[in-house]
Formats: sequence, structure tokens, C-alpha cells
Amino acid sequence: MSAERLVVVGGDAAGMSAASQARRRRPASELEIVAFERGHHTSYSACGIPYFIGGDVEEIDDLVVRTPAEFREQQDIDVRIRHEVVEIDLDRRAVRVRDLEAGGERWEGFDKLVVATGATPRRPPIDGADAGGVHGVQVLDDGLAIRRALDEHKPRRAVVVGGGYIGLEMAEALVKEGLEVSLVDGAAQPMRTLDPDMGALIADALRGLGVTLHLEETVEAFETSDGRIRAVVTPGRTLDADLVVLGMGVRPNSGLAEAAGIAVGPTGGIVTDRRMRTRAEGVWAAGDCVQTRHLVSGEPIAIALGTHANKQGRVAGVNAGGGYATFPGVVGTAVAKICHFEVARTGLNEAEAASAGFETLSVTVESTTRAGYYPGATSMKTKLVVEKRSGRLLGAQIVGEENAAKRIDGLAIALWNGMTAEQMTGLDLGYAPPFSPVWDPVLIAARKAAERVEQAG
Amino acid sequence: MSAERLVVVGGDAAGMSAASQARRRRPASELEIVAFERGHHTSYSACGIPYFIGGDVEEIDDLVVRTPAEFREQQDIDVRIRHEVVEIDLDRRAVRVRDLEAGGERWEGFDKLVVATGATPRRPPIDGADAGGVHGVQVLDDGLAIRRALDEHKPRRAVVVGGGYIGLEMAEALVKEGLEVSLVDGAAQPMRTLDPDMGALIADALRGLGVTLHLEETVEAFETSDGRIRAVVTPGRTLDADLVVLGMGVRPNSGLAEAAGIAVGPTGGIVTDRRMRTRAEGVWAAGDCVQTRHLVSGEPIAIALGTHANKQGRVAGVNAGGGYATFPGVVGTAVAKICHFEVARTGLNEAEAASAGFETLSVTVESTTRAGYYPGATSMKTKLVVEKRSGRLLGAQIVGEENAAKRIDGLAIALWNGMTAEQMTGLDLGYAPPFSPVWDPVLIAARKAAERVEQAG
Repeated sequence: MSAERLVVVGGDAAGMSAASQARRRRPASELEIVAFERGHHTSYSACGIPYFIGGDVEEIDDLVVRTPAEFREQQDIDVRIRHEVVEIDLDRRAVRVRDLEAGGERWEGFDKLVVATGATPRRPPIDGADAGGVHGVQVLDDGLAIRRALDEHKPRRAVVVGGGYIGLEMAEALVKEGLEVSLVDGAAQPMRTLDPDMGALIADALRGLGVTLHLEETVEAFETSDGRIRAVVTPGRTLDADLVVLGMGVRPNSGLAEAAGIAVGPTGGIVTDRRMRTRAEGVWAAGDCVQTRHLVSGEPIAIALGTHANKQGRVAGVNAGGGYATFPGVVGTAVAKICHFEVARTGLNEAEAASAGFETLSVTVESTTRAGYYPGATSMKTKLVVEKRSGRLLGAQIVGEENAAKRIDGLAIALWNGMTAEQMTGLDLGYAPPFSPVWDPVLIAARKAAERVEQAG
Repeated sequence: MSAERLVVVGGDAAGMSAASQARRRRPASELEIVAFERGHHTSYSACGIPYFIGGDVEEIDDLVVRTPAEFREQQDIDVRIRHEVVEIDLDRRAVRVRDLEAGGERWEGFDKLVVATGATPRRPPIDGADAGGVHGVQVLDDGLAIRRALDEHKPRRAVVVGGGYIGLEMAEALVKEGLEVSLVDGAAQPMRTLDPDMGALIADALRGLGVTLHLEETVEAFETSDGRIRAVVTPGRTLDADLVVLGMGVRPNSGLAEAAGIAVGPTGGIVTDRRMRTRAEGVWAAGDCVQTRHLVSGEPIAIALGTHANKQGRVAGVNAGGGYATFPGVVGTAVAKICHFEVARTGLNEAEAASAGFETLSVTVESTTRAGYYPGATSMKTKLVVEKRSGRLLGAQIVGEENAAKRIDGLAIALWNGMTAEQMTGLDLGYAPPFSPVWDPVLIAARKAAERVEQAG
């Protein structure tokens, strides 16, 4: 009996995690594994790009977890970079692959398939979005392109379009590089995954860093000359720009799967079950190209985040390799370092909770990261959003300085387990003066939320 | 109708939290509150004493959260320091109080009583344990006494007896003060709340700092002259000492309650229900003097820790004030900073789990606190102890550097909710390069534990 063949489409976190896990379950004599990646790199940390641009990370290769050669040598996984899968034929059980270097296409058969095609940066639907000097921040090659643009064109004025995590991290990195930076965002606050009161703290910090914020403005046009960006036009102003960074988020890159008849959901992400199986027999999908379940809202959601991609890829690979693993969904946890702030959130913010039909109460407490008397104690704000009737935790947000943000993990785990604020007041959290006040900020917030629920009840 | 009277015995964290919460529920016109404290201070952080000795905290008053005057002015709570309750008479509903300054005793009536008498440092049952230069580290006055001993007697050689948290923190503080420090402990490793493999890391760090460890040795005698300590004698050696610090832990100071007929449990701690009610009508107890439930072992346990004292005190006070609050128990979470290490633990270690009848599996993973390529990433070890059959998390231990220890909170909350390692692999934890590798150490450990459980199953 000849070996089965697993084809993986996309060689970043999800795809290569899947390949790697499948290999751990089945040797090469049983399962041939081929991965096609259209870019130059495999298995890298796109989240590290802003730190490469800002100089915290010196070499782009530092962001590569494992190279194609390492996959080949260590795990007998046949990784082919610069090969793009342009069609999936489920009936023929084959993919059509274009060789981006040598040219030409060929069909490659598969018994099992993992689709890990990632996401595509949103671009404003206007002319000039493809001009020289306009960059997305999605794949490692984008990071290299921005670095090259900084070195070769010595831009002085940058405009960042979009105030999400990547947009803000890039704005900060470009300030560090000495550029004059403006940020344009359609919302009233940057970082709209936070409630406005918490987002306002981030806006102030960015202004303090020297970033000019143009909020509630959207990009109407890009002015170009000789194919290069010259200015960004909003209804209110024209911003001269030598460099534009698009941080408008991404959408699942699910077109290839959809064209093959693999079901795609309302979010644009590929539909999978909790074992990451698509609705097509013998086809799994994982990473930024899928939709998953938000465990608090109960709604489908597409979240492009390396940590989910890795976990989903692992689950797809375990199952494709004949094992059993599940990805239950997400609660929307995210952390970021913006200026001197650590920012974190999990679950639903007030607007998201309202849109999911919850009646909520919110509390915000200000506390310190360590005992007030211990050196290095800094201030942090913790906000909890709870269901008014039950007191159940629905979401949490943290804005603080050093040692603040990772407290979101405990809140995410409490949320995951459906705890109420009242139950959380009893939690046994680590206390010692270098790590926490005797009442950890999480406990203070839980206590205050429980009191509010009791008063409202 | 005249006001009811609440008497609080003990003016530290538990007692004053209780007083404060009772006041929040009932005004002075309804409830008179009197708190008796035999020491000089109220509501302080005894956990901060090592940092005061080591110079990280400049003034002992920095460790006082609220003074007697503040309680009186802000909350109309009549705090009487240097007043020791020496007898409780439940039939007469009165306490006998000794004025330690003016002398004399008087009976003070109560309608409701909160017992918050704290803990007593264990002392070796040998002569000389009360000699000059031998210090416990329990109340704020102990901290002042050690500080004074350092300044006045300029000791050169210190022996710390007992390698628990306080003992180790004090050893480090005394090294910082320039003393030659030895540590004597009966166990094979310091910090026996950790498994030996994790404790060995701490032992090495202490040796690296210059502390001489004498393990598996117990103190046989204190040599004194002119009433002052001169040497500490173990079966193996005689250690010259100008200063001895006792870090042998504490036991509940429940004698006063027991003498009054209030039930005390096998741990020596006062027995309460989850509302912190003792078995005596109208009497609550809270803090280091009580026993509580360990939610993993199911056994009663006495743990002296400020965070529990505050929570229990709050619960006692809410209930004494006519409200409803509960303290469900503990899972044994603790964190400490020892030398360059952050150390944390929760739940049961291997020995504790075995003694509670669990058959266990353990995994230890080495990972980094941040993405490996991000500046400041340091190594950390995470150990999980899980039930072999079910995979349920029973305990966790962390030894690492900056930003490692507070990850114990997430593990404690997972434990609290009875999660299995397999369930934990799906957790949605905060990821960004400055905060975590894309697989958080907690997730890596959970994954590895789940794999081990599957292999064993």
C-alpha cells in the first residue's frame, strides 16, 4: 500500500503547525506531506514586524520560527516556497500549483488537504492603494519592503491608515525611526476593540508620543505621482506622505476554498467544526482563513491572530494525522504594547455586548501593579463588563504600564469558565508585594462589579 | 433602641477589613465598632517587612495601609492600640481587655464579635529562642526590631532558621545589608511548597547570592551570652551568629478563642463556615487565626497570607454587618521574588497530591516569558501536576525571571474551575511578542500534560 498524501496550502503558522502535527502522528512511510507557500518564508511571526521596523528586532530572520530546510530535514515535510495553489479540485483530489519563480503550473494530487491560506489586508477601494510607498503589514515580505522603503527612500512623513493593533504598533515604530507620523481612523477612538473611555487613554498616549491623530475621518483618495504615493486625502485635509502603512485589518483569504465549493460563512471565513474539518470530506482548514465561534457572544467570528492560527493548525494536523483534538472557539483575548502602555482586552466590550443582546453593567477601577510601597509599582485601569442580571463576566479591558496586561489571562480564563463577578471575588490569586497589591486589581474590579450587581438586583 | 456593638479582636488586615465592611453596611447610629489591637499599628503589610529590611521600602510607615486615626476619622471605628484582649466570655457577651500602656484591665461588652488574632511564629522549643538578637518576622514591630538590631548592633553574621518564603526573603535582604548569611532548614530543599526539582533551582540561586545553605539540619540549641545570641547549633555544626531570624512559619493564634469554647480544628485554626461564622452565635473569625478549606485536597488547612486575611475579613465584616458574602476556600496560590527568580505555585505539589490520594502525572516545560526574538525574553520553567486518570489540573509551579510568576493566576483560575489539561490547551490567552511566545508557557505545559495523559490512558 503506497503512502497517503497530505497537501497543505499555505506555509505560515497554521499550515506548518498542521503539517508538523500530522507528521508526529504518522511517519513518512505512511503519509507524504507537501506544503505549498507562495511567499519566501515559512512559519514566521508576522506580529513581530513592527518590532523589526522599530529596531527592537534586528534581523527579519529572527522572526522565522522554522525554515523550509528545517521542516524538510527535521520532519521530512516537503515545503515548496514560491509555489501558489491557484485551484482546488475536490473531485479530482488535486490542487493546481503555480511555480512563481520558474513559471508554469501543474496538478498535484492529495488524499487529505489542509487549507491555511491566511488573510488579506483590507485596502481602501480607491485608486493609488497599490502605489509605491503604500504598504500592508501582513506577510514577512511586507516587513522587508517597509524596511527597504525606509532605507532607500528616506521618507519623512508617514500616514498610518487604521488604528488597530498593527496600525498603532507601526505608528510607534515609525516615530522611533524619526518620521513625522499621522494616523487616520474612521472611528472616534483608535483601538476600537476597547470601549471609548479606555481607548481615550491610548489616544492620549499616542499624541504624547507625537503622533497626529485624525479620527472620524476616512481616506478618500491617495495622491500619487510617478507611481509613488504623495499624499493621503480625507474629507478634512490633505496629508503629505512619503510612506503609507495600511493597518485597516484583514479579511479571511478564503476565495480559493470558496471557488472549490468549500463552505464559507457570513464572516468570509471558511466554516469548520471544532476539529477544524471543513464541510468537504478530508479537508481541514485553520488560521486566519477560517471563522470560529466567539464563546461569549455565540456568534461566528473571524480573528486573525497568530496564537489562534497555531492552535487551530495543531488541531487540524492532529486530526488529519488520525488523532483527536478540538479547537473550542475564542473569547477575543488580545494584548498589545502601545507607547508606555500595556493594553489588553478579552470577551465583549460594551458595544459588542449590547449588540449580542446582553444588558450590562461596567466598572472601572484604578489600582497599582505591585504593592503601592514596592519600587516600580505603576497605575493600571481595569474595566469589567458583566451581565446585569446574573453578574456573569462578559468582558474585561486593561490599560496600564509594566506588568499590567497579562492579568488579562486570568480574566479570560474566568470568562471561559462562565464565572460571575461574585464568584471571582473569592479567587486565590498570587500575592506578594513585588507582584500585586494585597487586593489584586482583578479582585478589586470583581468586588466592585459584584457590589454593583447586588445594588442593581 | 440603642446601637448594637461590634467588637473586633485584632487590628491587622482581617480585623480592620471586617470593621470597615461592617461600617459600610451600618452607620455608627446603628452599630458601634470597637477594635482592640495589642501592637502599635493597624492594617499593615507584614509581607513588606523583608523589603523594609532590605532597603527597597524606606519607611516602616509605608507598610501601614491605614492608621488608627484614619479609621476613627474616616469611618468612626474606635481603634484602641496597645490593648490586648485576654479573655472572651461568650455567656456574658464581653471581652476582658488589658491596657498594655496604662496597665489595668476592664470588661467590654459586645453584641457581635470578630476574632482576628492572627498567627504566632513557630519557635524551636529550645532555650535561647527568646534571647536578644533572635527575631520573628510576624508583626510590624518585628520589622522595626530587626532594623534597630542592624543599626545598633551592626551584626556581621546572620542565621536564618527556616527556608519558607519569609525566611528566603529575609536571607536575601540580609545579604543586601552586607551580612554573612547562613540558612538552616530541616528539609532537603528550601521552599518545600515546591517539588524538589523546582526547589533545587531556588537553592542554587541562593547559593549564587552567597547564602550558605545547611539543609536537612535542624536547630538543636542557641548559644547565648549576656542574654544575646552567639551561635546556632545543629547536629552538624555550630554557626556563629549575631542575628537570628526565625522563618519557620506560623501557627494560628487561636488560644483565646479556644479558651472561650469556640471550636478549633485539627490545623489549630478556628473553624468557620463559608460566611466566616464560628460555631458560636454572633461570632465571626478571619485571617491567620482560622482554618479554611483547600479546594483541591478537600482538607482543612491553615494558611497565613495577607490576601486571604483581607478577603476573609471582608466576608466576616459584610456578614456581621447584615449582608451576605462567602469565602469559598483556597487553592494554595503563592508567589515570591527570591534573588533573580520569580517563584509561584498553586494547588498541590506532587507530595501533597499523593498524600491527598491522587495518582498524578507531572510535566515540566522550559519556555520564554516573551517571544524569543523580543528584547527581555527570559527563560522560565512551568510544571503542571495533573490527575493521571482524568487529566484534571491539580497543581502548578513556576520558576522564572521577570514576568514569569503572575502566570500562576491563570493556572489558579483554571484549577479553581476544575479544568483538565486537554481543556486548557484551547484557552484564549493574551499573545503579543512583548508579552508571550505565540504559545504561552501555560499552553505549552497544558499541551504536553494532555499528551502525557493520552499516552498513559
